Amino acid sequence: MKAVVFEMRMVDLIEKKRDGLELATEEIQFVIKGYTDGSIPDYQVSALTMAIFFQGMTENERADLTMAMVESGDQIDLSKIEGIKVDKHSTGGVGDTTTLVLGPLVAAVGVPVAKMSGRGLGHTGGTIDKLESVEGFHVEIENDEFIKLVNQNKIAVIGQSGNLTPADKKLYALRDVTATVDSIPLIASSIMSKKIAAGADAIVLDVKTGAGAFMKTLEDSRELAKAMVRIGNNVGRNTMAVISDMSQPLGYAIGNALEVKEAIDTLKGEGPEDLTELCLTLGSHMVFLAKKADSLKEAREKLENVIKDGSALDTFKVFLSSQGGDASVVDDPQKLPQANYTFELEAKQDGYVSEIAADEIGTAAMLLGAGRATKESEIDLAVGLMLRKKIGDQVQKGESLVTIYSNFENVEEVKNMLYENIAISTEKVSAPVLIHEEITE
Amino acid sequence: MKAVVFEMRMVDLIEKKRDGLELATEEIQFVIKGYTDGSIPDYQVSALTMAIFFQGMTENERADLTMAMVESGDQIDLSKIEGIKVDKHSTGGVGDTTTLVLGPLVAAVGVPVAKMSGRGLGHTGGTIDKLESVEGFHVEIENDEFIKLVNQNKIAVIGQSGNLTPADKKLYALRDVTATVDSIPLIASSIMSKKIAAGADAIVLDVKTGAGAFMKTLEDSRELAKAMVRIGNNVGRNTMAVISDMSQPLGYAIGNALEVKEAIDTLKGEGPEDLTELCLTLGSHMVFLAKKADSLKEAREKLENVIKDGSALDTFKVFLSSQGGDASVVDDPQKLPQANYTFELEAKQDGYVSEIAADEIGTAAMLLGAGRATKESEIDLAVGLMLRKKIGDQVQKGESLVTIYSNFENVEEVKNMLYENIAISTEKVSAPVLIHEEITE
Repeated sequence: MKAVVFEMRMVDLIEKKRDGLELATEEIQFVIKGYTDGSIPDYQVSALTMAIFFQGMTENERADLTMAMVESGDQIDLSKIEGIKVDKHSTGGVGDTTTLVLGPLVAAVGVPVAKMSGRGLGHTGGTIDKLESVEGFHVEIENDEFIKLVNQNKIAVIGQSGNLTPADKKLYALRDVTATVDSIPLIASSIMSKKIAAGADAIVLDVKTGAGAFMKTLEDSRELAKAMVRIGNNVGRNTMAVISDMSQPLGYAIGNALEVKEAIDTLKGEGPEDLTELCLTLGSHMVFLAKKADSLKEAREKLENVIKDGSALDTFKVFLSSQGGDASVVDDPQKLPQANYTFELEAKQDGYVSEIAADEIGTAAMLLGAGRATKESEIDLAVGLMLRKKIGDQVQKGESLVTIYSNFENVEEVKNMLYENIAISTEKVSAPVLIHEEITE
Repeated sequence: MKAVVFEMRMVDLIEKKRDGLELATEEIQFVIKGYTDGSIPDYQVSALTMAIFFQGMTENERADLTMAMVESGDQIDLSKIEGIKVDKHSTGGVGDTTTLVLGPLVAAVGVPVAKMSGRGLGHTGGTIDKLESVEGFHVEIENDEFIKLVNQNKIAVIGQSGNLTPADKKLYALRDVTATVDSIPLIASSIMSKKIAAGADAIVLDVKTGAGAFMKTLEDSRELAKAMVRIGNNVGRNTMAVISDMSQPLGYAIGNALEVKEAIDTLKGEGPEDLTELCLTLGSHMVFLAKKADSLKEAREKLENVIKDGSALDTFKVFLSSQGGDASVVDDPQKLPQANYTFELEAKQDGYVSEIAADEIGTAAMLLGAGRATKESEIDLAVGLMLRKKIGDQVQKGESLVTIYSNFENVEEVKNMLYENIAISTEKVSAPVLIHEEITE
């Protein structure tokens, strides 16, 4: 005579997942609610996440997990902003200036850009750090002011506040110490929950692939992209993903002020080819999802027009000055923080650039002070790297491969690191494909 | 520039196992030592055990885990006992009286039986509970006295003391709430660590198989048996396993005093056929491993002789009286605790017994008070069940299937339970095979 158990028990849910069965919506809610309020202990959740590592999650489970995490904390209400709020998310890479460019670019076409952004750790600062290269610019604005600015200018950035997706934060910290980070369903749900809690109606994902990305292979990147797109579409957020190359850094600039300068150039139509192309691709999808164009072709034309006619750049200026920034930097980039020293990394041989290991190049920029290794680190906004060559480019001995912007007089360590991670081949090399796939379902 | 980490990190070991790699001896020692001393938290160990559930463990890992758990606490020193100490372990079933029979039986042939035993939860009490049916018998003896008794009589039983395999206890409690109990390598290491810490030089395993056993299928039972035998042999303990039937209860008696009575009958050569045969089989292997016979055949002959000439029974008497028990129960079993009421479960139809669901029959005995559901439960030594028929036996309507020994006047619930779990077929049924396999490597 076994006792009839009406209560839901975590151990039974772990066993169910372990045995490859699908967890029901209310079961996933039970797990996330219990984990957030502390009634389910870490040791049961880590066993569950390891079971998920091996058994995966169905589409329903992924959607349920995402929404349970969204509902675990505050959700940003953007309903007072007119239009469809399209957010863009990148899975992270080196020298990724797309956010700085895309905001003013799509705003100029009428897409509302209500960006909540953070500082974070990494090779360079977060979007807020970069924007703070502009004298006076700040993100400490009230919520009402933020909404008003977006309705008025179509673009504003606010610092992270509120208790968004606490379940995701707790779960990520646990996964980090239990070897369960590398699980596509868990990664996908984590990213999507944050975007949805931040109020996005529609989402464009930039999934990076290659040596400098979290996902090293196209297969893994595709799987992650599909997982996120399906979650978004299953929970009523129009979502698509672009898989873009991160075998080398994007654009030329790696550093905070350097990237602001590069963003300005790109908004003028004078930016690096790859950065421009990726921004136009991602931007077209944002414009299309925001229903500001009837086709991707029309969306792209609109974006090209606002670059040509200067309105994208104007939008950037208005955005900066609305949040206290000195918009004159746009016409006079010398006003951005400047490093005391520059050094050229001279090619040691003739040939073709065959490899620029993005991760290590990023670490070199961090060594100069461009990024944070820990939460306590201070960022030097002026420093960083400007690539002078990209993969496939021909180079002659003595020509500069990279310009190093530094406030240290001695950059030997950085130079050695760069030499080790930029390869020159005697044979001709072709540039990597920039945009691998676009995934809409 | 990644930091070079010299320290062993638990998260790396989880990842290693997760990815199917073999953990080194010192890595397993690190895990068990850290878990025992509390420096490695539950949530990392539960992630590791779930990874083990999916990836399994190599033979080396199993041996290392077993010995690390042995070394996590006290180890019983039986070196002052002459001869090879052979321990027997059963994976548990219903009505399993083998321990009570085997002790005196092999001791009578000269095999030293130094038994440490507990009470435990289950359908009936543990070995100590059963022996306490004999008036005056007690296991609270000093270690020196215990050693002396074994050397003198070849058999003694002592209650569990000391801090044996604390790592196993902690790990088992964690596995129980994280759905990682059902892992052959973890089950095998757990059992073997306890036997080895208790001082066994050689081990005979009785792995039960069938509906009433922890392992329901022959395949699973074989895998567990092999796992344990290999661990034993890999750590220098001669080990073998018998896979025996538990599709129905073993013998006829299920209950404490009832099993003592059945053990006495068996030592007299008048016990149930299946119980007698299993005891002779397991006993032969014990005698052989203890080097008290040169072959299994010789070992079996010796055991049959000590039954025939009464010396097995005499050994039992000496054993009981040496530990304060009234040995006259052996000749006068009426002195054992007697239930107030007996009831017969009458067959409702003619036919052949086709099923006696061991688990549920055991639960019925527990309902009568024969076993403990929780640590606090009190056991009624007098009550229980005596099967009158076994699978394959012919039965006529009205004939007794089971005699119920109870101190409750009303046993309707128990009767209904028994009827539900004893099936009678109109077609002839053959008795199940008792001994499926003997596994020595």
